[in-house]
Amino acid sequence: MILSALITSVGINLGLCLLFFTLYSILRKQPGNITVYAPRLVAEGKAQQGGQFNLESLLPTAGWIRKAWQLSEDEILSVLGLDAVVFMRIFIFSLRVFTFAGVVGIFILLPVNYLGNQLNVDISDFSHFSNKSLDSFSISNVNNGSNWLWIHFCAAYVFTGVVCYLLYYEYEYISSKRVAYFYSSKPQPHQFTILVRGIPIPSGGTCSETVDSFFIENHSSTYLSHSVVRRTSKLQGLIGDTEKLYKRLSHLKLNNHTPQRFRRDGFLGIFGRKVDLVDHYEKKLEDLEDNMRLEQSSSAGKEVPAAFVSFKSRLGAAVALHIQQAVNPTKWVTERAPEPQDVYWPFFSDSFIKRWICVLVVFVACVALTILFLIPVVLVQGLTHLDQLETWFPFLKGILKLTFVSQVITGYLPSLILQMFLSFVPPIMIMFSSMQGYISLSQIEKSACIKVLWFTIWNIFFANVLSGSALYQVNVFLEPKKIPSVLAEAVPAQASFFIAYVVTSGWTSLSSELCRLTPLICSFFKRVFSGKDGDEFEVPSIPYHSGIPTILFFGLLGISYFFLAPLILPFLLVYYCMGYIIYRNQLLNVYALQYETGGKFWPIVHYSTIFSLVLMHIIAIGIFGLKKVPLASSLTIPLPILTLLFNEYCQKRFLPLFKSFPMECLVKKDREDVNDPTMGEFYEKLVTAYRDPGLMSLRYSRSGTEGYNSPLLHAARV
Amino acid sequence: MILSALITSVGINLGLCLLFFTLYSILRKQPGNITVYAPRLVAEGKAQQGGQFNLESLLPTAGWIRKAWQLSEDEILSVLGLDAVVFMRIFIFSLRVFTFAGVVGIFILLPVNYLGNQLNVDISDFSHFSNKSLDSFSISNVNNGSNWLWIHFCAAYVFTGVVCYLLYYEYEYISSKRVAYFYSSKPQPHQFTILVRGIPIPSGGTCSETVDSFFIENHSSTYLSHSVVRRTSKLQGLIGDTEKLYKRLSHLKLNNHTPQRFRRDGFLGIFGRKVDLVDHYEKKLEDLEDNMRLEQSSSAGKEVPAAFVSFKSRLGAAVALHIQQAVNPTKWVTERAPEPQDVYWPFFSDSFIKRWICVLVVFVACVALTILFLIPVVLVQGLTHLDQLETWFPFLKGILKLTFVSQVITGYLPSLILQMFLSFVPPIMIMFSSMQGYISLSQIEKSACIKVLWFTIWNIFFANVLSGSALYQVNVFLEPKKIPSVLAEAVPAQASFFIAYVVTSGWTSLSSELCRLTPLICSFFKRVFSGKDGDEFEVPSIPYHSGIPTILFFGLLGISYFFLAPLILPFLLVYYCMGYIIYRNQLLNVYALQYETGGKFWPIVHYSTIFSLVLMHIIAIGIFGLKKVPLASSLTIPLPILTLLFNEYCQKRFLPLFKSFPMECLVKKDREDVNDPTMGEFYEKLVTAYRDPGLMSLRYSRSGTEGYNSPLLHAARV
Repeated sequence: MILSALITSVGINLGLCLLFFTLYSILRKQPGNITVYAPRLVAEGKAQQGGQFNLESLLPTAGWIRKAWQLSEDEILSVLGLDAVVFMRIFIFSLRVFTFAGVVGIFILLPVNYLGNQLNVDISDFSHFSNKSLDSFSISNVNNGSNWLWIHFCAAYVFTGVVCYLLYYEYEYISSKRVAYFYSSKPQPHQFTILVRGIPIPSGGTCSETVDSFFIENHSSTYLSHSVVRRTSKLQGLIGDTEKLYKRLSHLKLNNHTPQRFRRDGFLGIFGRKVDLVDHYEKKLEDLEDNMRLEQSSSAGKEVPAAFVSFKSRLGAAVALHIQQAVNPTKWVTERAPEPQDVYWPFFSDSFIKRWICVLVVFVACVALTILFLIPVVLVQGLTHLDQLETWFPFLKGILKLTFVSQVITGYLPSLILQMFLSFVPPIMIMFSSMQGYISLSQIEKSACIKVLWFTIWNIFFANVLSGSALYQVNVFLEPKKIPSVLAEAVPAQASFFIAYVVTSGWTSLSSELCRLTPLICSFFKRVFSGKDGDEFEVPSIPYHSGIPTILFFGLLGISYFFLAPLILPFLLVYYCMGYIIYRNQLLNVYALQYETGGKFWPIVHYSTIFSLVLMHIIAIGIFGLKKVPLASSLTIPLPILTLLFNEYCQKRFLPLFKSFPMECLVKKDREDVNDPTMGEFYEKLVTAYRDPGLMSLRYSRSGTEGYNSPLLHAARV
Repeated sequence: MILSALITSVGINLGLCLLFFTLYSILRKQPGNITVYAPRLVAEGKAQQGGQFNLESLLPTAGWIRKAWQLSEDEILSVLGLDAVVFMRIFIFSLRVFTFAGVVGIFILLPVNYLGNQLNVDISDFSHFSNKSLDSFSISNVNNGSNWLWIHFCAAYVFTGVVCYLLYYEYEYISSKRVAYFYSSKPQPHQFTILVRGIPIPSGGTCSETVDSFFIENHSSTYLSHSVVRRTSKLQGLIGDTEKLYKRLSHLKLNNHTPQRFRRDGFLGIFGRKVDLVDHYEKKLEDLEDNMRLEQSSSAGKEVPAAFVSFKSRLGAAVALHIQQAVNPTKWVTERAPEPQDVYWPFFSDSFIKRWICVLVVFVACVALTILFLIPVVLVQGLTHLDQLETWFPFLKGILKLTFVSQVITGYLPSLILQMFLSFVPPIMIMFSSMQGYISLSQIEKSACIKVLWFTIWNIFFANVLSGSALYQVNVFLEPKKIPSVLAEAVPAQASFFIAYVVTSGWTSLSSELCRLTPLICSFFKRVFSGKDGDEFEVPSIPYHSGIPTILFFGLLGISYFFLAPLILPFLLVYYCMGYIIYRNQLLNVYALQYETGGKFWPIVHYSTIFSLVLMHIIAIGIFGLKKVPLASSLTIPLPILTLLFNEYCQKRFLPLFKSFPMECLVKKDREDVNDPTMGEFYEKLVTAYRDPGLMSLRYSRSGTEGYNSPLLHAARV
């Protein structure tokens, strides 16, 4: 790619970004869009729906940027919990890293690269500056064996040191936040509860009796109560159907005199005799209700050999969690209980063996998805190599000769296509993770986050870098000795693609995040076609599983290209600055707290950064070898080893705290509770906190159709 | 190697074995040897020293075999603990495996191999049977692409199934034994105690106060007491010197009128003026004593930030062990306490960083040892290839032409030389492991056991198989795809060497174990030269770290050669039968209990067997490929995967029990103690159980030279 193609791409995207920003500042002030752009505020009652339209609101303003800028970390913490803080810390951490990298890269490495003449470009020839290949700014342009490469060598060492220092600092900061958050928290059900699986029910006994006798025997002083888990997936389906039908019915009743009320009862409402829909639906609802009651009464007996067991103290729960319970470790398996609203109930219908098979299936599915995804990647690679495209489609020759078209195609289209395909990945990974038998939504999201991250690194980074046959790629990883030299040859060659990728994919994704295009369009169609006035809207939760991998992937690009092609760094800095403001704005207005993991997403960030550093080192080892400075290549070998030792130390120092809280904290909190007069009330709530929502609704549904009010709806939604 | 060379080797070794057996049955009845052949019985007072010599005792008898055979598992358990039972279970397990393998190998696989004619040997030519290469009994002789290979394929599957079943059965059996052993045990100090390291001592405070306040705060209901660890390595050296001097002095006093009493006080007792040794020693002893007292009083202040903390119940100790104590996980690090007599005190003088460096140094040292060991291995390989030896040493040509010489050299010498070099490895590995900072002798021995096992597998199996340059070997493991084919080519070629190795090394090592050659010779020289009459003798403990790796290595040979060269199996069976009897005899008479790990050596056996199976599968994949049956090669690929899944399951099912005892057991045992009237006494003992022997002696030494009686000697010996 030449410089002018990059400038075209930057221009297009800068324009798009400005357009989106302007659009956003206008659209957000329209009264009808308030449920799109500030759903949490509406739900909290801090913003009102259905204001009046006025002309002033058509003027773009930038006040929201100031507001987002002023948001403090404590505010985020109080409204959205520690996870949101961790999410923003990723931006702060990345900004710090790439400010340093940018200064070193642009003011030291870039001039060194440009002054080399390995690529046989006359540096005094400024007339064709815009036709220069981007490669003349990369390390490829430094002469082989040149002593200037020692500057790159030093930069790699210094940069690694700075990143490791920042990593340590952040890990320590988030650890301290985590402890402080725990200390300041009120008693919460999940702190006192564990999940027990593999309960060996004796023949003739019930699960409940078995649990009671076991825990009274072994945890006599701390055991409080338990809730046996029941098989309710069918019931939950019925509840969903009922809820949907009830909504439709109440909607019909409201608009009593519309022509929609009468419809034929046959196929698609076109054939059959005309019926009153209200009567029709009411009858159907009654049937469903009967089914539901039948299911509830019968499923009350279908116990799953699992139970949520609550204790009188946090320490009691921790003891039961950490110490193996039974002689046979596959029985009485304990696990940390998630928050009640975080429990993923459908899981419980699967047996142990079924779950194991599921894990295997998911693994195979992930591999299959990764391989299938190579097809679009290879196609995209074809676009950056125009000559190849011409040989495939000879009739395109004429069009491709046009400068603008070729620049758009090489600079913009590839990233856009990749981006489109990539947008399908997070939901698929969420689906895969939910099949793996996790018991909470947060675990599913964390697992999906890791899956998406690896998928992105493999399919965007490695597949693009090692483009060619898929077989060839696998071969490289079977011959570990060759990896550095293969990467050193392939990675710098793709520098221009990834610079364009940052500009197109990165910047565009942020703009569309700001404008919330999909919810906007949905809301628009809803209002126009179904005549609903936005009464119903969902407050979304922060999409960690798609957001974090994207941010981390750009970090990986920045770190691995830091000394290869420093030109990528300013674009990355722009990305992180925009991201910082946009996500703060979204946190302020859009997202609501769904669950709280207490910052458990941070270790993913840490490992990903360590991986990026080691990748950079491996490439450095290869490239110094290729550039005929074998001494530098050998002297780089300690760098990944030191980095991994640093990682080992961090793991020992900080990771245990992210898994469970230490004795010190537990005892301190438990002691505080002793003097708390509200604990009695809390224990009462604790007993019913982990009851299956499918069975909870038993109480409300009996009172008839009118009974389908908030408790059921709430329960069924959870 | 040809058949007759093997027969020569078998003949020599059978002869040697018979000789050793006869020698043993005579020597053991000699009154002077009783401390060599039944030291434990003597120490226990069940056998008496210094009986009368009579002629009858010169007749070889086989009564000891009957006695060893009749020994029951319960007897072993009661005298030598669970570890000795596990040690014997290795033989029982191996006997079962190789009885099955032997039947399949000799009656099915061997005829199939022999009937092939890939090696172009006329099978009807029985006249030169003894000149046949051993290769005609191996899979190499089966024709390429022959359907007979499917028999080997089935054998591999069936054999893997049988071994896995036996592994599961044994693991379950030993698990149940472990639990039963725990239930039947009396309260023991190490069950109630943990070791705490990294105690953050505040400035001005003492370690003891810090520990007290922390545990009273966080474990108020279960905390009992603690013993701070002190830096006593210098003191222990002084105690050792004093003890040695005291022994010499008391010996001199006993033999009051010998000419040894007077000696010159200069170099080696040759120069200088003549002195009365008793006076000389007594003066020295006083000096040492003064030093010791000085050291004791000063070192009492030199606290190590570590302490043994005892609790009132097993559960209390388990809670403190399993739950992270402090917010900073590098502080208040808890670890299971070993039995008091099992503590390895010298370790405590090392700081955390020092220990970390030690671990790295040990790792590097192990690698260096492994590489250095290649030198004797390559030399040994030269002996099996006589032609190579002739080119190196042309003057040997004449001698090597003699059939007997060449047969001895190819069949016997290589193994003997290897064996000699190998005998140095276990002590070196013990030294390495003790540098790694383990806190107990049992952990050191277990770690050394694993080190010796890997060393043996690498340096005997792989180095012999992949003989050639060391560089070439490393290369194979950097290209994982090539491993099966490389192994498939190299492993069968070494079949004859390993058959000879089993016969020479295996059988000989058992015979020398039975005769206890080294202690016998030592005791002989002691009696003849120093005139001591065997009053002093040490009761040895079972040498797990050298015994287990040897037995497991022969298992690896048997499993990996099971379908390649079934001729190895009968010799292995003989090895295991002999080993079974001999080790039972030694357990009955020789070894004493030093410490009890409760069967923690078994997981090593399990993993080693799984590794052997997977190695066999990899070789099978390679060999079916080489033999042009690609379908069988592909169909073998699921076999290692299934085996590893089986291993994964076993690890989940049984391993946790070998790490710590579950809640169920702890609570049950604790409840029993509540009604035990002796518990008060036990708690009193518990408080002083983990006092450093170096400091304990303070009490006895003050009373002067006469005070050096059993308590000090005992303490210093531990």
